[in-house]
Amino acid sequence: MMDFLHSVDSAALKLVDRRSEPNDLKSPIQPPSDSQTGCTDHILIWQWNELSGWGHPEIRPYGPLPIMPSASVLQYATACFEGIKVYRGYDDKLRLFRISLNCERMVKSSMRVKLPEFAPADLEAIISRFAAIEAEKWLPPGLKGKTLYLRPTHIGTTASLGLQKPRHSLLYVVATLLPGFSTKRSGMRLLTSPANTIRAWPGGFGNAKLGANYGPTLVAHDEAIRSDFDQILWLSGPEGYVTEAGASNFFVIWISPGGELQIVTAGLHNGIILEGITRRSILELVRYKSLQEEAWIVANRQLKPLTAVERDISIQEIQAAVSEGRLLEAFASGTAYFITPVEQIHHRGQDIDIATPSEESGSYTSLIKNWLSNVVYGRDDPLGWTQTI
Amino acid sequence: MMDFLHSVDSAALKLVDRRSEPNDLKSPIQPPSDSQTGCTDHILIWQWNELSGWGHPEIRPYGPLPIMPSASVLQYATACFEGIKVYRGYDDKLRLFRISLNCERMVKSSMRVKLPEFAPADLEAIISRFAAIEAEKWLPPGLKGKTLYLRPTHIGTTASLGLQKPRHSLLYVVATLLPGFSTKRSGMRLLTSPANTIRAWPGGFGNAKLGANYGPTLVAHDEAIRSDFDQILWLSGPEGYVTEAGASNFFVIWISPGGELQIVTAGLHNGIILEGITRRSILELVRYKSLQEEAWIVANRQLKPLTAVERDISIQEIQAAVSEGRLLEAFASGTAYFITPVEQIHHRGQDIDIATPSEESGSYTSLIKNWLSNVVYGRDDPLGWTQTI
Repeated sequence: MMDFLHSVDSAALKLVDRRSEPNDLKSPIQPPSDSQTGCTDHILIWQWNELSGWGHPEIRPYGPLPIMPSASVLQYATACFEGIKVYRGYDDKLRLFRISLNCERMVKSSMRVKLPEFAPADLEAIISRFAAIEAEKWLPPGLKGKTLYLRPTHIGTTASLGLQKPRHSLLYVVATLLPGFSTKRSGMRLLTSPANTIRAWPGGFGNAKLGANYGPTLVAHDEAIRSDFDQILWLSGPEGYVTEAGASNFFVIWISPGGELQIVTAGLHNGIILEGITRRSILELVRYKSLQEEAWIVANRQLKPLTAVERDISIQEIQAAVSEGRLLEAFASGTAYFITPVEQIHHRGQDIDIATPSEESGSYTSLIKNWLSNVVYGRDDPLGWTQTI
Repeated sequence: MMDFLHSVDSAALKLVDRRSEPNDLKSPIQPPSDSQTGCTDHILIWQWNELSGWGHPEIRPYGPLPIMPSASVLQYATACFEGIKVYRGYDDKLRLFRISLNCERMVKSSMRVKLPEFAPADLEAIISRFAAIEAEKWLPPGLKGKTLYLRPTHIGTTASLGLQKPRHSLLYVVATLLPGFSTKRSGMRLLTSPANTIRAWPGGFGNAKLGANYGPTLVAHDEAIRSDFDQILWLSGPEGYVTEAGASNFFVIWISPGGELQIVTAGLHNGIILEGITRRSILELVRYKSLQEEAWIVANRQLKPLTAVERDISIQEIQAAVSEGRLLEAFASGTAYFITPVEQIHHRGQDIDIATPSEESGSYTSLIKNWLSNVVYGRDDPLGWTQTI
C-alpha cells in the first residue's frame, strides 16, 4: 500500500531561504499547465473585502491565483461554484439559459459559508460580458449546437488560521471547451452509494453548491469508476430514497403504484438535494406542455403527457416498478451532462436494468431533451428562458 | 441589505490582456500581507503527483501559493489540516506532543477526500525538522511555557473542472505565534446550535479533519459571536446529543443519574465527532491516574478520582443535572484552546449556568489542565507522550 513512497530523510531536508526573491515560491510549485486544464485564455476577477466592499470586475489573462497558505478557502472550504453554458444557437446567435437562477443560487451558496452577498443582477451582467468576449474566440460563428462551459467560483481569501467568517473574497469565472464531463456510454450505469456513506443530511448543506459537498464524495465515486460505473446514485435515510446521480439530479418516468403516468424526482423539502436549474426547467416544461397534445409527438409516435411529481422515491420502489414493468425510463439532468439516460442501477449486488429506447424509436427522455435543446439553441423558447448576448 | 454594493456597469468592464506578462495576475489580487496573518517566515512544502509520487520536502520563504483557478481544492474542497503545537518546556527544551497521532489522522483525513496517502512517520520526521528550525527563531530559549502553533495542510491541486480524485497534491506546513484562537473570558459561553443546522451526520465526515467540516459552520458561529457567545455547542439528532464545542471536544464532569462521579464526552461510535488528541489524552490520563490517590490533590484539596465515560449525552440530561446540582464542571478541549472551562450554555432561550471554580479553589478542570501542562512542558510525562526536538 505504501510502496510508492520513498523514505524521507529529514536531515537532508533543504532549507531554501531567499529573502531577496519573495516571489520565488512560484517556481517550485508546479501547477498543471493550461493545456491540461482546457481553460480559455482569460479569467474574470471580482474582489471583495469587508472594508471597501466589491471592487471593479476585471478580465485578465488566465493563470494561477496567488493564495495565502492560511487562506480561508484552503483551511475551511469557504468556497462555492456554479456551472453555466454559453450556447451557439442553430441561428448562429449566442445564448445564455436562465442565468439569473445561477446568480441567485450563487448568492445563497455564498451565504451558506459566510462569503459576502452581492446583487445577482450584477453578477449576471459581468458574466454575460465575459461570456460574449470568450465565445467570440472560442465558440465562433458556425459552431452551431456547440457550447462553452463557464465556471463561476467564489472563495474566501482571508489569511487567518482562527476560524472566522472571510473578510476578503474573490469571485472569478473561467471558461473551458473541455470541462471533463463525459460518460463511457450513451446510457449511464449507476452504483448506489455504500451503506456507510451519506452525501447530505437535513440541516446540512446539500442544497447549496459548495465545494464541501463534492470532495467527500470522491471515495465512493472513484470506487464506482473503477468498477466500470459512471456515477454514484446517492441514497438517503433508512428508506433508501434516491437523491442525486453523481452531481446531477435524478428522474424516473413510471406508472405509479396508483396507476398514474408520472415523471418523478426528489423534492426540495428537506434541503438535501441541489435545486438544479435543468431539473426545475424539466418540471416546468412538462407542466407547461401537459395540455398540448402535439408537443408529445416524438419519432412519429404520440406519447401520453406525463404528470410531474416531486417526492421521495426509494430504491425499493424503483426495484418493484422494474420487476412489475412499470418503470419506463430514468435519466440524470444537469448543466454539465444535460440529460443523460440511465440504463442500469446496481444496488447491493443486484442489477436493476432500465429500458433505454433509441432516439429513433422515441422516448420521453429524448422528447424532453429535444424540448430543452430547442430552447437553448434558439428554436423554440415558449417560456422566455434564454437571452442572446 | 445590499447597500454596500455599488452597481456594476458591465459595459465598463475592463479587458486587460497582456500576453507578454503572464504572471501579472499576481499584482491585482491582493492577499493580506504577512503582518496580518501572523505566520512565520517559512513554509514547508511537500508535493505529490500521481506519476512520480511524493517529491522531496523543502523549506522555503513564506508567501502566497500559486493555485490554478480550476484546482480541486478551490472547486471541490479536497483539503484537510492538522493543528500541532511546539512547546518550550520549563526546562527550556522544545517538545512535540503525540504528533504521530496527528500524522496518522492526517493520512485518514486525506484519504476521506481521495488525497494521496503517505507514511505517517515521514510526515512526523519532516514536521519535527521544520518545527526545530522555526522554533529556533520564533520560540527561542527563555520563552518557557510558550508555544508555536503549526498548521499542516494537504490540498488537491489538480486543475480540472471534471469531478475526479486529485492527481496532484500539495502538503504544506506553516507556523504562527498568533493563531487567532482566543476567548473573551476565562470561562466560555456556548450557544447550542440552531435546530435547522447539523454539523455532521452518521455516514458523513465529521470524524475527519476536513476543511469541509468548518466553512458550513460559520453562519451559526458568526451568529453566536455577535450575540456575545464564544462558540456553538453542536447538537445532534432529535435527542439533542452534545457533540463538539466549536471545533473542540466537549466534556462534562458530573454525578451520573446512577450516582457515579464521572467525566463524560461523546463517543466515537457513529463517526460524527473528531477524535481529538487532547480528548484522547484526557481520557487516558484520567484512567491511568484513577488508582493514584495523590494525583488527585489540587490546591491542597483531595478530590475523588473520576471514572472516564464515552457516551452520547443530551442537552436535556445536562439541564437536568444542573437543576439537580449534579453537574460539577464542563470544559472544551483541543490543541488550539487547550482546556477551557465552560461557564454557561444557552439553549433555546434558557441559560444553563455551570460552576467554574477558580484555579486556587481547586477543580477537576484545573487538575486535568495541570496534568497535561506538566506533560507538554516537560515536568512529568508518565506515558511517554512527548519527544524533544
